[in-house]
Amino acid sequence: MGGILKGMRVVEGSAFVAVPLAGMTLAQMGAEVIRFDRMGGGLDAGRWPLAPSGQSLFWAGLNKGKKSIAVDMTRPEGQDLVTRIITAPGEDAGLFLTNLRVRGWMDYETLSQYRADLVMVTLMGDRHGRPAVDYTVNPALGIPEMTGPVGWPEPVAHALPAWDIAAGHLVVSSLLAAERERLRRGRGQEVELSLKDVAAATIGHLGLIGDAALNDKERGKSGNALYGAYGQDFVCACGRRVIVIGLTHRQWRGLVKATGTEAAMAALAARSGRDLNDEGNRWHLRREITAILRPWFATRELSSFAEAFDAAGLTWSVFRTVREALAEDPDLSEDNPMFKLLMQPGLGRFPVPGHPAAFSAHERAAPQPAPQLGAHTEEVLGDVAGLSDTEIAQLFDTGVVQSPRFGARPAA
Amino acid sequence: MGGILKGMRVVEGSAFVAVPLAGMTLAQMGAEVIRFDRMGGGLDAGRWPLAPSGQSLFWAGLNKGKKSIAVDMTRPEGQDLVTRIITAPGEDAGLFLTNLRVRGWMDYETLSQYRADLVMVTLMGDRHGRPAVDYTVNPALGIPEMTGPVGWPEPVAHALPAWDIAAGHLVVSSLLAAERERLRRGRGQEVELSLKDVAAATIGHLGLIGDAALNDKERGKSGNALYGAYGQDFVCACGRRVIVIGLTHRQWRGLVKATGTEAAMAALAARSGRDLNDEGNRWHLRREITAILRPWFATRELSSFAEAFDAAGLTWSVFRTVREALAEDPDLSEDNPMFKLLMQPGLGRFPVPGHPAAFSAHERAAPQPAPQLGAHTEEVLGDVAGLSDTEIAQLFDTGVVQSPRFGARPAA
Repeated sequence: MGGILKGMRVVEGSAFVAVPLAGMTLAQMGAEVIRFDRMGGGLDAGRWPLAPSGQSLFWAGLNKGKKSIAVDMTRPEGQDLVTRIITAPGEDAGLFLTNLRVRGWMDYETLSQYRADLVMVTLMGDRHGRPAVDYTVNPALGIPEMTGPVGWPEPVAHALPAWDIAAGHLVVSSLLAAERERLRRGRGQEVELSLKDVAAATIGHLGLIGDAALNDKERGKSGNALYGAYGQDFVCACGRRVIVIGLTHRQWRGLVKATGTEAAMAALAARSGRDLNDEGNRWHLRREITAILRPWFATRELSSFAEAFDAAGLTWSVFRTVREALAEDPDLSEDNPMFKLLMQPGLGRFPVPGHPAAFSAHERAAPQPAPQLGAHTEEVLGDVAGLSDTEIAQLFDTGVVQSPRFGARPAA
Repeated sequence: MGGILKGMRVVEGSAFVAVPLAGMTLAQMGAEVIRFDRMGGGLDAGRWPLAPSGQSLFWAGLNKGKKSIAVDMTRPEGQDLVTRIITAPGEDAGLFLTNLRVRGWMDYETLSQYRADLVMVTLMGDRHGRPAVDYTVNPALGIPEMTGPVGWPEPVAHALPAWDIAAGHLVVSSLLAAERERLRRGRGQEVELSLKDVAAATIGHLGLIGDAALNDKERGKSGNALYGAYGQDFVCACGRRVIVIGLTHRQWRGLVKATGTEAAMAALAARSGRDLNDEGNRWHLRREITAILRPWFATRELSSFAEAFDAAGLTWSVFRTVREALAEDPDLSEDNPMFKLLMQPGLGRFPVPGHPAAFSAHERAAPQPAPQLGAHTEEVLGDVAGLSDTEIAQLFDTGVVQSPRFGARPAA
């Protein structure tokens, strides 16, 4: 087997979404990723959603395929140990990801004294080092004011921690870019970014800052409509809801043809004096277009047109809850080679995803479950930190480290 | 100057968010990124939001710092040219990103005949090659059912193309991983992923699939509340809205202390028999906690507590529109080294973001504007495709390529 990053060793000191996702993405590409936590588990050890057992599905989801060590970092021996693991020798080691921002023993200045070519990526809340989470960054930058039903008087937060996800992936690519440079020039470096800057940059990239700076109007909410062209949701006769997209010219023509609304759309274009082949005109006339399409969907069951829509190559989807998706969408099952049905102790049996990319020079790696807290403590102390059995035993005896065998509760 | 990827050359054939964002992220780390488009511009040339001139702020935002060539790919000469550019020699070249999925002349099998170590990353709609966009993937997998005001009877789409953003960054890290392998083992490869698989994997990583599989209840909507612990929005006496977070123990204690609600929270804990130091209990009691905190905010102006909240290290934010953020948040101005105030022809003057990460071995690179469509056609034909001046002139004469000098409309 062996993923595309096989041989790379990354150490991760983290909690919550972004940096755990980064480490896991690297692990799912074949890197050896060692996550260290404090004794008893990190800040995210019990993060929701939970399994019926009370164990964290969130933690299990974001730490798949990693090695776990549990260390008492309030003690100098624990700090020494973590330092030793982060800065252990190895051409493809000396890579450290963190969002913990511990000054002193765990900062770049100190750690790089033990390994000059260390690559360390630190994710902060904001660029000033102040705390921030997806739930605060998002309202600060205006997305909730654009989200939600037309006319709804309040901002609507997104349910998906989208900025955490973006930041996690930027941690991955920043690490790979810095490791690439180290490979060529031999030098390590510190990489710093913040969740808020990731969000601020992204809204700039999408044109939202230019829009706010140059245009007089706030964008406001547009419900489930596709912004700037045509896309809308409809309820069918069977009660199921679908969204149909007319973003590109081809999508738009396909939608009009599939619904047999050519004449009505032509009449709308003539009446309004606007060419519906222009995406902006479709946006301006979205309410009128929707009024034409609504009866079509309202009088048809989903099953009566789904196959024809697919055959016509339309861009569309049914709405589902996650439970409905799990029940009816083969893309969330083992029919999809990205998924594997895993039985995980303390959690249960359900489809678990691997890395989304298929690399043609590698077999697709099956997703591995998350470790129990401290499950790899002995192994990492020996193989990575280079300690003797006697030294390892002493660390357990004095309670500097923890493993499930030597009295620790499982984290996941 | 020179970013961390200086010397790398990437060719991009793309439209919309994900792959353009991927190419731009690489460009902002110093790679030479050549985007090719069809004559007159790609599918996203006019994507909203628009500047007052009618030019696309979206296109300008997602193609910053790239080189642009415009080629008639309906003609064999145009296809040959693009093939030559994608597969041009150079140790750090032969890297190709696309979401266009053109079979035949532009697929991996054909292109790799011209350069055996080609690395090509293709983003599809879904794993079956069917079309999908953020607006269809998101409802298919259940996020809109979790989004929006409590009790609102309809799914609410997110306004941010979060899956496109995640997919774009996964394209970046997949490319860097494949290029890393090429550097070590000399072999190229094809990398394929789909937008829907990115979303499906991510909801799995976040524990949502396990939750749906193992627990009886749908998660449902929770408005602007932080799921699974405590976080809520409040309207202040001045009318401004804030969100405050009590996710970690420390955040929770800080919030209670700053609002002087220790006694009321203790009484709630006693009354309910639930320890509020447990994050799940804070979630179960969120309505009661909110009832305690609401009068505190309702009777205070934002300006009366903002500094104290910051001084206490609370995790919180005010809500803003993008325009408000631009007016009042220094993080969206040149006070933030990530931003540069750029005057862009046809658009206007506004703060433009660079890459969110600061690499300690490199100066922070200032963001560069997007090119006009075809602005680098001559340069790329000469320097990359290796054509003579005569050959280049002939391609312009016969209309196989386009540049602003030789009669093309600007794309941005």
